[in-house]
Amino acid sequence: MKKALGGRILFFCSIVCLLFGIQGYAQEHPNLILTKAGVEKIRAELGSIPIFDTTLKQVQEEVDAEIALGIHTPIPKDYSGGYTHERHKRNFIILQKAGVLFQILEDEKYAIYIRDMLFQYEAMYKDLPVHPKERSYARGKLFWQCLNDSNWLVYVSQAYDCVYDWLSSKERKKLEKNLFRPFADFISVGNPQFYNRIHNHSTWGNAAVGMIGLVMGDDELIARALYGIKDAKLDINAKDNDGGFIFSKDKKAGFLANLDEPFSPDGYYTEGPYYQRYAMYPFLIFAEGLQNVRPELNIFAHKDSVLLKSVDALLNLSDKDGEFFPLNDGQKGMSYYSRELVTAVDIAYHFGGNNPGLLSIAKKQDQVVLDDTGLSVALGLKENREQPFVKKSILLSDGPEGNEGGVGILRYGQEELSLVFKYAAQGLSHGHYDKLSYSLYDQGDEVLQDYGLARFVNIEQKGGGNYLKENKTWAKQTVAHNTVVQNMVSHFNGKYEIGSQHHSELVFSNITDPDFQIISAKEENAYPGTLMHRTLVMIKDPDYERPFVLDIFNIISDKENQYDLPFNFMGQVMKANFEYETPSSLQALGDDNGYQHLWLEAKGNPLTENTKLSFLNQGRFYTLTTTAEGSDELLFTRLGANDPEFNLRRDASFIVRRKAQNTAFVSVIEPHGGYSPVSEFAVNSNSNIENLTLVGNDENYTGVSIKDKNGHELIVVISNNDASSETIHELNIDNTQYKWSGPFNCIKIKKQ
Amino acid sequence: MKKALGGRILFFCSIVCLLFGIQGYAQEHPNLILTKAGVEKIRAELGSIPIFDTTLKQVQEEVDAEIALGIHTPIPKDYSGGYTHERHKRNFIILQKAGVLFQILEDEKYAIYIRDMLFQYEAMYKDLPVHPKERSYARGKLFWQCLNDSNWLVYVSQAYDCVYDWLSSKERKKLEKNLFRPFADFISVGNPQFYNRIHNHSTWGNAAVGMIGLVMGDDELIARALYGIKDAKLDINAKDNDGGFIFSKDKKAGFLANLDEPFSPDGYYTEGPYYQRYAMYPFLIFAEGLQNVRPELNIFAHKDSVLLKSVDALLNLSDKDGEFFPLNDGQKGMSYYSRELVTAVDIAYHFGGNNPGLLSIAKKQDQVVLDDTGLSVALGLKENREQPFVKKSILLSDGPEGNEGGVGILRYGQEELSLVFKYAAQGLSHGHYDKLSYSLYDQGDEVLQDYGLARFVNIEQKGGGNYLKENKTWAKQTVAHNTVVQNMVSHFNGKYEIGSQHHSELVFSNITDPDFQIISAKEENAYPGTLMHRTLVMIKDPDYERPFVLDIFNIISDKENQYDLPFNFMGQVMKANFEYETPSSLQALGDDNGYQHLWLEAKGNPLTENTKLSFLNQGRFYTLTTTAEGSDELLFTRLGANDPEFNLRRDASFIVRRKAQNTAFVSVIEPHGGYSPVSEFAVNSNSNIENLTLVGNDENYTGVSIKDKNGHELIVVISNNDASSETIHELNIDNTQYKWSGPFNCIKIKKQ
Repeated sequence: MKKALGGRILFFCSIVCLLFGIQGYAQEHPNLILTKAGVEKIRAELGSIPIFDTTLKQVQEEVDAEIALGIHTPIPKDYSGGYTHERHKRNFIILQKAGVLFQILEDEKYAIYIRDMLFQYEAMYKDLPVHPKERSYARGKLFWQCLNDSNWLVYVSQAYDCVYDWLSSKERKKLEKNLFRPFADFISVGNPQFYNRIHNHSTWGNAAVGMIGLVMGDDELIARALYGIKDAKLDINAKDNDGGFIFSKDKKAGFLANLDEPFSPDGYYTEGPYYQRYAMYPFLIFAEGLQNVRPELNIFAHKDSVLLKSVDALLNLSDKDGEFFPLNDGQKGMSYYSRELVTAVDIAYHFGGNNPGLLSIAKKQDQVVLDDTGLSVALGLKENREQPFVKKSILLSDGPEGNEGGVGILRYGQEELSLVFKYAAQGLSHGHYDKLSYSLYDQGDEVLQDYGLARFVNIEQKGGGNYLKENKTWAKQTVAHNTVVQNMVSHFNGKYEIGSQHHSELVFSNITDPDFQIISAKEENAYPGTLMHRTLVMIKDPDYERPFVLDIFNIISDKENQYDLPFNFMGQVMKANFEYETPSSLQALGDDNGYQHLWLEAKGNPLTENTKLSFLNQGRFYTLTTTAEGSDELLFTRLGANDPEFNLRRDASFIVRRKAQNTAFVSVIEPHGGYSPVSEFAVNSNSNIENLTLVGNDENYTGVSIKDKNGHELIVVISNNDASSETIHELNIDNTQYKWSGPFNCIKIKKQ
Repeated sequence: MKKALGGRILFFCSIVCLLFGIQGYAQEHPNLILTKAGVEKIRAELGSIPIFDTTLKQVQEEVDAEIALGIHTPIPKDYSGGYTHERHKRNFIILQKAGVLFQILEDEKYAIYIRDMLFQYEAMYKDLPVHPKERSYARGKLFWQCLNDSNWLVYVSQAYDCVYDWLSSKERKKLEKNLFRPFADFISVGNPQFYNRIHNHSTWGNAAVGMIGLVMGDDELIARALYGIKDAKLDINAKDNDGGFIFSKDKKAGFLANLDEPFSPDGYYTEGPYYQRYAMYPFLIFAEGLQNVRPELNIFAHKDSVLLKSVDALLNLSDKDGEFFPLNDGQKGMSYYSRELVTAVDIAYHFGGNNPGLLSIAKKQDQVVLDDTGLSVALGLKENREQPFVKKSILLSDGPEGNEGGVGILRYGQEELSLVFKYAAQGLSHGHYDKLSYSLYDQGDEVLQDYGLARFVNIEQKGGGNYLKENKTWAKQTVAHNTVVQNMVSHFNGKYEIGSQHHSELVFSNITDPDFQIISAKEENAYPGTLMHRTLVMIKDPDYERPFVLDIFNIISDKENQYDLPFNFMGQVMKANFEYETPSSLQALGDDNGYQHLWLEAKGNPLTENTKLSFLNQGRFYTLTTTAEGSDELLFTRLGANDPEFNLRRDASFIVRRKAQNTAFVSVIEPHGGYSPVSEFAVNSNSNIENLTLVGNDENYTGVSIKDKNGHELIVVISNNDASSETIHELNIDNTQYKWSGPFNCIKIKKQ
């Protein structure tokens, strides 16, 4: 498939390049994102397309206010968050918008503003040295990293396209010779270690070079964008600031490679949703440009329409409030309300068959892109064609071929309860050491959290807005996630070189019955000699008020180890059913691998067969019930040790610690009842579980019994060695013979 | 005034009692809260009064569901949160609602339900011992405290009134003889230590006895309600569970005394808004009953209409979201959406001259009381008469005569910034040791918090839903508030006996200019020999993006002391301009007075003349700038030490510690800019203050200079010995002569 495609494109290039070499300059502008025909259609509809009209008005006010402030292109000096960084960032955003306004409103003041600013940049850029800040592996000129310079060019290309025909040929020549071409060269051939990667950085670089190439009709730049720099001299062992390898093993590069490699066939982006969101803009905006200027490429159909699928996948990777699950490095709060997602949704709607579900997202976003795609959305909304975008349970594969594990999301009801199970690949340099971890959401509120990243993006006071060292020492470490840590060492010893060679495996899953959804996955490489096998089940039983999660974590090892299973719970402790001691002074729980950041607030041992901890969060009660062994240690921890800059949140964790060779942690997380500080009624504040028991565990089967307060029992049996849905299983439980097909079964025994 | 009033009432009683003695039984029912005429009017309007119709439908659904569950009157056993407590609580709420439904809908099933449940209670009550739980100073029978028994009777009286005429005379006699009269006697003459107090407990008791008295036409009970138990034998030194004195010095008691004593003439209730809210229901519902049955009392005009004023005061004691400021013991989150406030707003609207501002609150509440008052509100809303309820800056006096200090609220804009300054009396047994403390809110979000109480009201897991011991050891202590602690000892040594003898004093204030609002107050008794004088100014200057708070805390003592000024800030530390050390293990900051709950996270010393700490909360930046002395200690603390049950939130504090005899802490809390995790833009993230200086401080004047980054200067001068607004002051500052009248001045010096 890949070979065939490569062949097709080479063929296309050899013939068409020449044509375009001539045609390029002759094409009418705008043709990149806005098109001549599109602009005419927009002008005709103006005033009758509410969401478009409102966005246009807001953009006009924003741009007019900036024009009134005058043009400022300061000599670059700062990291993100600092003045020069934020000013140049603001400039490229406003330039793009001014271009759109010029086309739609036909008011020359916008063209003049663009021209004048571009020539200020032209005058400055000629002699501009690399940026004085030295932290980046690929320093830019306007910004401290080539990445931001690429952002600039992606946006400014669009502005240039909008005024292209309005500028004189002499002006265009001057700009292209002194600004655009050297700019594109600097971020590509000038920085191959940035440009020739499989990484979101490179995607921005590729799109930047490609988009200015499309506007300029420069086929060399377009080819460089699509296929990378040929014959770049590269150090295969080089790493970037995040500790990731710079180059992929097979040295693939360019926009198409960046589309093939990090996206799975399901549209999951291996770095995780936060970076997928970031990369979506260059992916989609360049794709839109290619579709408009080079429709023969049929870019949206590439790799079985992976770009369109990726928008759907990304929307599904959000909680009830539209906030992305913070898998790997992801800043919490980022959501489908971001500008990148406005673009993504509009483009996916326009080029992806007008899915009416996307209209409901666009309606929530309450703005559209001011181009043909936004017009489509505005017309769709005007004609009331929207339908709810229903997020269901979904399994997303990881890896270019979709065979490197993945991410599973279990949802009950209207996202009443959502669980995100990660059994994926490393996720490039932004990956965390969190094999088989999961996080849990109730109505969009975190119950068991993934910490996210340790960074305050663009807040200068916090390390220049960049990654903080606690990202490596805490956020990436295994103990920051809800999964097992062996001997207080992170998965793969916290080493990217090792982690990036492996991925977890999906064993089986079934998400068809909303009342019994199951995903089972295993990991054999995180700790050599230890097999971790986790099965998560979301169960809604009529005898329980709310759905709950059953978590079976089986461990088989070649030696005895200490296993820590952290529950990074949110909220206030209500009650524990065991005794514990609280120390009079707090010590860190360990020296490294994240443990150096945890204060040990209390330590206890189980008193009964089940360890129970209940807590209250956002007005809802939760109880963790987990099978106990007498020698378990139960640890309450609090984040904040060895955090001299107050970079970490003071979040809690409850850790079950067990010394064993083979063992199973069986737990239920049970949401129940609620509390309102206004009515002051506490409803159903106690767990409904009387007893949770591991009734059997061998190489063939694991069986768990959940008995409720009324004596009704649920028995969940999973097969440990046969994932086939065909196999017939037969088991005798309590003198009753049960028979079923497939790798799991749930038996309900009502009390007589 | 009081004497005259007393005379009038005695006169009224001696004549009217006889009349009522005869008339009482002859009156038609309902006449307590619902009235015959009112019910007819409601029936006529039904279907055309949306908010009333909706509430009625909800209530009907709620009651029908309860009726379907059957009647349950379990033998009392539990604390609040437990089954029997919650069941009996639910019963009285449903009984009251069923009564209303019977009257409005004329469906006999509701009357039958009430009758049947009342007779179950009648059968049980006859032989019911006091409640088995022993914690209360006044144990009830249905509940663990007489307070809850009184709640029951306040509600059930209303239900009884609604079915009074429908019941047979024989049924009424049986209920009154075996249930209502003994019930009323038990909570009053049976428990004078509960009933004959000036306290919200007694208000409930008085209202309960009075309301059943009004329904039964029992003048003895009504008199007992209004004036308390005559000649009750009382131990003047007795205390309740909260550590408060049970009896007032002059032994006043009864409903009218409870109206005279805890309310200031401005309607401020000395226990604070949380308990005012709780007490409002019996105050207002009994007042409504009195107004209906005994209109001659003109209860709503009592003490210059203090009941109506108190509703206005209470609404003003809420933040932008309608949540009450947690002064003294107050559970955060309680708001004007509570059922008590629905009643309060409707009654104040109906009996207080149809203030259209109240309609906008009722609209937000989205429900009304199902009686004449709710009908008035529903009709007002139907006719679109509502206007915004604008909360402005306000000073509320404390004390029966209004001369015991008070609470001042400074507000800027539409509650963009709100400050609550407490210079009040002790606030009875629920008072905190927090003289001259303040809390600060930005758009309804806390910036500098008052911790509130240490209790999870009605959550059984947490100490039976009652006060936790950390309420005394932490929440009430001075260090839990934003005010000075001397030598690590709380105000009045944390002793209620001393604190309740004193109050702070308002020195001067001016809230007429929204851009410069000032309140100055002093406290001389919290620490004998030490005068504390705090002046808070809310300033909006055109050179600053947002309003900010200037805080001048002057201390004059007869000896050297250690002063701690805590800033209980919310959010994440962004930056500090001083060096500090973070310990490798955490110790508690002290042994008692609240300090035993604080972990010392870091300790430093100022490097420059101003100590600066910036933090980020809810997407907004704040900077604290405070004048420093080289020997100051700067402490970062975190709550949680000595908290074995995890009862306390892990909140932060920043404490400025200084050893001195006389000193002034001068600080600015400056909100600025913001951050969105969606746009990832950090706007205006730095303080605009270049320098904050105490330019002069003597017995006559305190002068403070605030210089901004552009060199513009604000000089604020306050008079320390003359609060008169008439006095002319003249001062030479930097060779310029300034002259003004009144105790403060603000001079702006623009940089040339």
